[in-house]
Amino acid sequence: MSRIDGRTPQQLRPVTIERGWSKHAEGSVLVSYGDTRVLCTATVTEGVPRWRKGSGEGWVTAEYAMLPRATNTRGDRESVKGRIGGRTHEISRLIGRSLRAVIDYKALGENTVVLDCDVLQADGGTRTAAITGAYVALADAVAWAQGKKLIKAGRQPLTGTVSAVSVGIVDGVPLLDLRYEEDVRAETDMNVVCTGDGRFVEVQGTAEAAPFARAELDALLDLAVAGCTELAALQRAALAAER
Amino acid sequence: MSRIDGRTPQQLRPVTIERGWSKHAEGSVLVSYGDTRVLCTATVTEGVPRWRKGSGEGWVTAEYAMLPRATNTRGDRESVKGRIGGRTHEISRLIGRSLRAVIDYKALGENTVVLDCDVLQADGGTRTAAITGAYVALADAVAWAQGKKLIKAGRQPLTGTVSAVSVGIVDGVPLLDLRYEEDVRAETDMNVVCTGDGRFVEVQGTAEAAPFARAELDALLDLAVAGCTELAALQRAALAAER
Amino acid sequence: MSRIDGRTPQQLRPVTIERGWSKHAEGSVLVSYGDTRVLCTATVTEGVPRWRKGSGEGWVTAEYAMLPRATNTRGDRESVKGRIGGRTHEISRLIGRSLRAVIDYKALGENTVVLDCDVLQADGGTRTAAITGAYVALADAVAWAQGKKLIKAGRQPLTGTVSAVSVGIVDGVPLLDLRYEEDVRAETDMNVVCTGDGRFVEVQGTAEAAPFARAELDALLDLAVAGCTELAALQRAALAAER
Amino acid sequence: MSRIDGRTPQQLRPVTIERGWSKHAEGSVLVSYGDTRVLCTATVTEGVPRWRKGSGEGWVTAEYAMLPRATNTRGDRESVKGRIGGRTHEISRLIGRSLRAVIDYKALGENTVVLDCDVLQADGGTRTAAITGAYVALADAVAWAQGKKLIKAGRQPLTGTVSAVSVGIVDGVPLLDLRYEEDVRAETDMNVVCTGDGRFVEVQGTAEAAPFARAELDALLDLAVAGCTELAALQRAALAAER
Amino acid sequence: MSRIDGRTPQQLRPVTIERGWSKHAEGSVLVSYGDTRVLCTATVTEGVPRWRKGSGEGWVTAEYAMLPRATNTRGDRESVKGRIGGRTHEISRLIGRSLRAVIDYKALGENTVVLDCDVLQADGGTRTAAITGAYVALADAVAWAQGKKLIKAGRQPLTGTVSAVSVGIVDGVPLLDLRYEEDVRAETDMNVVCTGDGRFVEVQGTAEAAPFARAELDALLDLAVAGCTELAALQRAALAAER
Amino acid sequence: MSRIDGRTPQQLRPVTIERGWSKHAEGSVLVSYGDTRVLCTATVTEGVPRWRKGSGEGWVTAEYAMLPRATNTRGDRESVKGRIGGRTHEISRLIGRSLRAVIDYKALGENTVVLDCDVLQADGGTRTAAITGAYVALADAVAWAQGKKLIKAGRQPLTGTVSAVSVGIVDGVPLLDLRYEEDVRAETDMNVVCTGDGRFVEVQGTAEAAPFARAELDALLDLAVAGCTELAALQRAALAAER
Repeated sequence: MSRIDGRTPQQLRPVTIERGWSKHAEGSVLVSYGDTRVLCTATVTEGVPRWRKGSGEGWVTAEYAMLPRATNTRGDRESVKGRIGGRTHEISRLIGRSLRAVIDYKALGENTVVLDCDVLQADGGTRTAAITGAYVALADAVAWAQGKKLIKAGRQPLTGTVSAVSVGIVDGVPLLDLRYEEDVRAETDMNVVCTGDGRFVEVQGTAEAAPFARAELDALLDLAVAGCTELAALQRAALAAER
Repeated sequence: MSRIDGRTPQQLRPVTIERGWSKHAEGSVLVSYGDTRVLCTATVTEGVPRWRKGSGEGWVTAEYAMLPRATNTRGDRESVKGRIGGRTHEISRLIGRSLRAVIDYKALGENTVVLDCDVLQADGGTRTAAITGAYVALADAVAWAQGKKLIKAGRQPLTGTVSAVSVGIVDGVPLLDLRYEEDVRAETDMNVVCTGDGRFVEVQGTAEAAPFARAELDALLDLAVAGCTELAALQRAALAAER
Repeated sequence: MSRIDGRTPQQLRPVTIERGWSKHAEGSVLVSYGDTRVLCTATVTEGVPRWRKGSGEGWVTAEYAMLPRATNTRGDRESVKGRIGGRTHEISRLIGRSLRAVIDYKALGENTVVLDCDVLQADGGTRTAAITGAYVALADAVAWAQGKKLIKAGRQPLTGTVSAVSVGIVDGVPLLDLRYEEDVRAETDMNVVCTGDGRFVEVQGTAEAAPFARAELDALLDLAVAGCTELAALQRAALAAER
Repeated sequence: MSRIDGRTPQQLRPVTIERGWSKHAEGSVLVSYGDTRVLCTATVTEGVPRWRKGSGEGWVTAEYAMLPRATNTRGDRESVKGRIGGRTHEISRLIGRSLRAVIDYKALGENTVVLDCDVLQADGGTRTAAITGAYVALADAVAWAQGKKLIKAGRQPLTGTVSAVSVGIVDGVPLLDLRYEEDVRAETDMNVVCTGDGRFVEVQGTAEAAPFARAELDALLDLAVAGCTELAALQRAALAAER
Repeated sequence: MSRIDGRTPQQLRPVTIERGWSKHAEGSVLVSYGDTRVLCTATVTEGVPRWRKGSGEGWVTAEYAMLPRATNTRGDRESVKGRIGGRTHEISRLIGRSLRAVIDYKALGENTVVLDCDVLQADGGTRTAAITGAYVALADAVAWAQGKKLIKAGRQPLTGTVSAVSVGIVDGVPLLDLRYEEDVRAETDMNVVCTGDGRFVEVQGTAEAAPFARAELDALLDLAVAGCTELAALQRAALAAER
Repeated sequence: MSRIDGRTPQQLRPVTIERGWSKHAEGSVLVSYGDTRVLCTATVTEGVPRWRKGSGEGWVTAEYAMLPRATNTRGDRESVKGRIGGRTHEISRLIGRSLRAVIDYKALGENTVVLDCDVLQADGGTRTAAITGAYVALADAVAWAQGKKLIKAGRQPLTGTVSAVSVGIVDGVPLLDLRYEEDVRAETDMNVVCTGDGRFVEVQGTAEAAPFARAELDALLDLAVAGCTELAALQRAALAAER
């Protein structure tokens, strides 16, 4: 079987991770998975939300949004509608949890990092690209905070790396990293977030067209772990490069 | 190991499914998983949302909410805050997708069923109890609609049954159907929605304290499938009983 | 004349007051007036709203709401609409004022009690059932706070009891405790809140179909006072019982 | 006893009813009860809300609001807060119900009248002044609609007149038409809406400081009916005058 | 050419500035430009917004709104819609900036003045009338604060006076102070805010029908400066009068 | 005098206009004025808003927004706050009016073009860059609509070109195209929108620190017209290039 863009079922789209995209943010990354482009910026502020004050522990949170014409047809702005939709809430929460899975709050100290993930162009997999890019922006922001002595010398708030990818079954075949056209045709759709050492942070599988069997689930998990491993290598390479 | 309430790791809490709780709704169920109590009502209306009109197909959707003092400390009402929180949105969407997985829209015809799942008392697993209860309320509502000839004779909109349960790893041990005190201590937490024949509708796993390995994931899925099978039997028994 | 359910004009519906309905709340009551069922929970918190700090006085407030399918046709959730309707506001304020009429703020000390009155099923008289039930939940919450020494020894914040009932004129006959079908047919409709010793806390009369004369008003007030006296006895009995 | 402004207990404040205050509205009245000044405008539109279409019947509704500095200290605008408060809702509903009590919907035909009552300066009794003024604006709007043939020849939508006044017990003495300083000191506070022939449209009594006895209630009702009768005469005089 | 109301192109409408309109506010002015009537109240409070605390400097801000029936057809209330429209925001900001242009924050000290400008009747030029009236209310409020010693003896927070007028090109002729009917026909429309000594505070010109040339802009600015000079004289006269 | 970045007072920052930035939108431009970067996308839809239906005329509107970390410190998302701020409203309206100034609605036919201008990075002049970029996106969208025959053959909806630039007086010197650091120091700040033939569409001048004299206004207008002329040439060049 040949995919729309000629990839094999096990193949990621071309992935780019461009650091330092914004001059203002403490960390900023323009990540692309094929035509999906997400701008991830990390903002560091001293202090933590009220419910955490005095704990000696930091906090990491995320907000995801789409530009109105990131998609094929224009979506109304949530600011104009006056309320945030369920999908946006859900993805923001997912990104936040995923990044917090590799954070040592004590080492971070009473600092807060906010990751803003704004989708400039969407072609499937925006939440997974956001997680992969946000991790790199977070790493840059942590390094910035270490340079500014906001984080105590010798403390490393990052306990690992985290990346994410979508997988799904299309026409009975498990595929890695779905484009939008594949995503809408998928019988089953799963987003998987892994650490760099191949363990799971989030597994979210949904039967779109029909319930799925255990064997299908296993095949999807295998694909996803392999994809995340590849993405982790790309993250390391991006962070190793001079900026 | 002995659990707080003396259950074995593989044991559900006492589950009750009380049909016909409300005199107004087309289907209504008070479901309890131990101290978790959720009132699920199904409302049938002729017609479908605008984007679906003329398709000949029906629609099923769900709304989840908690009474302010369903929990140990009082939560502010979302109506008073003027906005629905991310968690509420996320769970409402999950319940809706889960029920739609066993619906044949064509057979339902241009009718809409809304499932309201209001948590009267919470002790862990509210979203899974809601799905299990809502399915029974939906079945009663479908039967009502058949009786009223809103659904064509001989058509069966339900393609199967659906139930849900939480699983998690506490102190290294995989446990079925977590109470609140277990849930907050879980290293990993997963909600699994299955059809009556043991296939997956939704799998949502989250590393709360530490990323989890494939073996742990597999153990949790085994537990969950067994739990859902037991719940499916309870649903069948409830629906078989005279009302 | 015979009423729909065979009652005499002066007769209340069967009233039940079930204490300790919820395991979390400091006071909780499931009250029913016939098919009208309201869950009233009382939450005690130390401290008072900002405008009252340092006064040495406490505060009591209430919030009323209906589940979407408490009524014959489903109502949209106010949380989804993003705003609270006028009727909800009006009733919440009425319940709060009614309970505050029997509170000695000084004796309560700087504690706040919030009464949540959620209508699970509606069949007329939801606001009056809410007041009658909320008083009992409040009494249990006050006793709890005394047990916890939040209230100084020897102080009694409750200066009396309070209960409420609706009255109305249907086909020219004054009736006590209207069911929904009677309520919609009433020419005049009145909600009366009394203390246990028969004095008035609130009198809210509305000409639904035609303005009413002084004699009619007098007849309704007589009926209401008798009804409230009976309800006060039921409250006393409920509070006297072992829980 | 002498009141702050030298009135007897049975005396209204000076009341003025200035018709035709606005050049745009179909009816407009600047009403004052002493220093309380409310601008009431009536807007007539052809057609009725959707739920009433095709009924052949009209609709009358009202909106009440206060300018931010109508009171002694500035209140935040409800438009800025993004939500309408309970008090505003409650009063808007009261005004609407009061006016609808003297409307024959059939005679009005499928026309809608909206009464806007904006408090320019507040000194107690704003809701009662609003009702008294709004009735006159409504009468002018109805006459305008008759002139424009929106209402069928020979039909009179107004079935009577309506006016309102506050009464209360201050230092044990029942007083008519409370100023703000009297209102805050009142033990009991009641707003009464009467038709021109002395029957009741709304009776809303509240125990502010202590529950009240039947005898007190009776005394207040007597005062209020006398006050409303006087106000009805002032309304008639205003409407009889050339504009 | 003769204008609708017989004015020459260079002529203002009759302007009245009525001080002390409200008994509660520290400054209050009912200003009219012909049939446009705006109630401007100034509220003085000790203290400043949080971001300005400890600076020793004061703050002046403004809120503009229209009564629903100030215009020819009724507009929905922004409080009912739950959000403030762009036009309202824009004008509130313009009024605030205009007044701040003649304020010495240091001399004002840590006090805040809020100007509420509520349009009671609109006939074009509401924002310019609001500025002219608000300045006078502000001057009265400053004098009040000086009397109360909120402002240090010998300090004068007002560094000048400010007034505003609209100008526009209708049928090729530059006109001063447009009425509504002129405004809707204008090819170009400009609002100009000047100090009493003829310098500019705000210049906002908009091509309504066609882009405008420099010569037209110059002609409009000449007209506006002359108009503002005349308005400044009226402000001085109003402030010189006994209240 | 030397500016921060070495420009002369009459010099624009480096301006780039990158067409076809997004694969989904009918027109899309990434415009930069130095470090200010705005993504402008144009969405064409058949049909017009309800109030314009049947007129045979089209509509053009715009929405402006900033990413949260486009600026030096992070701003809260307006979607999260649930309301759009005054500045955002004001700028969206300005962009819409500016573009409509060069649109022939009849020639556009009953089509709507929405211009979304999202600031990815801000360094002063975001609204002027947005206008200049949005014009180019609009031109591409119009060409697309002509290609799709949504616009009748031979009709040209664009009656000219439009561009914008900021000017201001810093330390007494009139400067063109202010960077953020210049903008905050400006005594007077003006945004000017011109057509390609040097006429004015919008002139918005604000005295930030001190009222400004006519001579200063004249100098700023001269600078702005020259700047807009230069920008118009860059727009023409961008549109002439192959995509």
